[in-house]
Amino acid sequence: MTDSADRLRAYAGMKVLVTGGLGFIGSHLSAKLVELGSDVTIVDSLIPDYGGNAYNVRDIADRVHINYSDIRDPWSIRHLVRDQDVIFNLAGQVSHLDSMTDPRTDLEINCAAQLSLLEALRAENPEARIVFAASRQQYGRPQDVPVTENHPLIPVDVNGINLIAGEAYHLLYNDVHGIRATSLRLTNTYGPHQLMKHGRQGFITVFLRLALEGKPIKVFGDGSQLRDFTYVSDAVDAFLRAAVTDACYGRALNVGGIEPHSLLGVAELCQELAGAGGAVERAPWPPEREKIDIGSIYVDHGLLTDLTGWTPQVDIGTGLHRAIDFYREHGNHYWT
Amino acid sequence: MTDSADRLRAYAGMKVLVTGGLGFIGSHLSAKLVELGSDVTIVDSLIPDYGGNAYNVRDIADRVHINYSDIRDPWSIRHLVRDQDVIFNLAGQVSHLDSMTDPRTDLEINCAAQLSLLEALRAENPEARIVFAASRQQYGRPQDVPVTENHPLIPVDVNGINLIAGEAYHLLYNDVHGIRATSLRLTNTYGPHQLMKHGRQGFITVFLRLALEGKPIKVFGDGSQLRDFTYVSDAVDAFLRAAVTDACYGRALNVGGIEPHSLLGVAELCQELAGAGGAVERAPWPPEREKIDIGSIYVDHGLLTDLTGWTPQVDIGTGLHRAIDFYREHGNHYWT
Repeated sequence: MTDSADRLRAYAGMKVLVTGGLGFIGSHLSAKLVELGSDVTIVDSLIPDYGGNAYNVRDIADRVHINYSDIRDPWSIRHLVRDQDVIFNLAGQVSHLDSMTDPRTDLEINCAAQLSLLEALRAENPEARIVFAASRQQYGRPQDVPVTENHPLIPVDVNGINLIAGEAYHLLYNDVHGIRATSLRLTNTYGPHQLMKHGRQGFITVFLRLALEGKPIKVFGDGSQLRDFTYVSDAVDAFLRAAVTDACYGRALNVGGIEPHSLLGVAELCQELAGAGGAVERAPWPPEREKIDIGSIYVDHGLLTDLTGWTPQVDIGTGLHRAIDFYREHGNHYWT
Repeated sequence: MTDSADRLRAYAGMKVLVTGGLGFIGSHLSAKLVELGSDVTIVDSLIPDYGGNAYNVRDIADRVHINYSDIRDPWSIRHLVRDQDVIFNLAGQVSHLDSMTDPRTDLEINCAAQLSLLEALRAENPEARIVFAASRQQYGRPQDVPVTENHPLIPVDVNGINLIAGEAYHLLYNDVHGIRATSLRLTNTYGPHQLMKHGRQGFITVFLRLALEGKPIKVFGDGSQLRDFTYVSDAVDAFLRAAVTDACYGRALNVGGIEPHSLLGVAELCQELAGAGGAVERAPWPPEREKIDIGSIYVDHGLLTDLTGWTPQVDIGTGLHRAIDFYREHGNHYWT
């Protein structure tokens, strides 16, 4: 932890841009950066249903610059990246299902906008460091678990393909143009500040909301599929460490959890912790979801640990407990 | 060969669309399809410097439909794919260097237009079969040779990244939407009909032109880098077989050559066959080319052979000889 504290001291006085900074992970990251003494600019376009929410930054709103713009707009981005020391690049379209019904929008945001952001950096600020929020969705159905970074990338939806391209541009610009870039492949990140009004930010939001409302949680199939879960403060710590660790540049790194859990187990834990009387029910797979389901998957994050000392700190019980407490108090800002 | 003849008989009476059909490989493919009795529609936008050339179809112009349009135009494509039995999808931006100076255009053509073409098929003609022209450039610097289809994809330029996405969309639409799609990863394809006025269609065009003009050929480094070379009629045969072989759908398949050759050896062979007195010189790497060079690479095409019976038939000496004869007679249509 001393190592970590030393490392993160580098953020004092740094100019940091957070794309998607009004969103789930971006808002927690921005708050931590404020605490570390950074000069933080948030870029967010507040596209409905994408997760941006002014309420997420209610405690830091007077200590950050908030710039409303879309990362698909190359000119505003070109201006915004100037003079930044670090860019945390979290703006994205995250819904797997939406990427199948509107693939072009997913491409514009997760693929084309990433390329234009990197072009902006190349033109205006090649000294900056950038960390991209990628996804374990890029692996598709795992050939074996835990999945390491060398696992083939054979995604099962358009979102996964576009993230592969978005990540690859970052790593290429590192190698060819010297822009220090790292990609973090996130798994199921959860915690306060997630958009809860639909399932676009992952099944955990659906589970939590149903549990809080005392309604049954449906688990598709037998619920034995394993996943790993990262509490949001652990994800934030991974971003912070990666950006200031030279050995991370040019690499894609897995960010996992303490240990994998079954969907059924997590559903039951949500009901138990919420204590609102809801049950867990098994249901047959809806065909459109089964087509893009990937079975059990969890990642090996040993490389990130080796390079940065990062390890996940918050176990699933503690994390879900915190999330439930948060949504019980603030839920009205997240499900309407 | 009987097997092959049987297989290709399926093309008699088929409606076939060839995107990029006025280009190098597309024009040879279209001519072969006419010979096999297909009803061929060529789509080409004749973007300057991209390889489309009306002269390439001089012998078949009255037996094909030529439709001038850009695959980035989703509405004309939506109309054109209707009722086609097979789509050979060869339209693309092929210059690695251009993809680094104008990455957005490369993305629009090799990535975004592919997605909209597949969306058009999904909406208008999900029964069609489609074969995508991909590239061994997707592998990047090989970890070992020969490269199989399972080799990691870590490209060294934007073109390689966008082709990965373009290919992945095809395979995904096969798996999820049932559109029978195959991707062929081509190496250095060569022969008549290549644009020779610059090096955008690969170093072999530069070598051939210099040899015909009796000028020295510069080989970067020591010239020992190995490559494989596919004569264009062999590439055409791979496309034709892949489209009518059920076992190919949903797969990416390497298309290689008979055996690898060094760049120095090929340069010397070009000079020898052209007989115009030019020499081969070694030169230091230009920095912008060295950055995206990948060393020796050649592929294992055993999977394509297993599935379709395809093997390359034309050795490098025969192929270069034919190419030199062609350009000696018709070169004025290809280098101005």
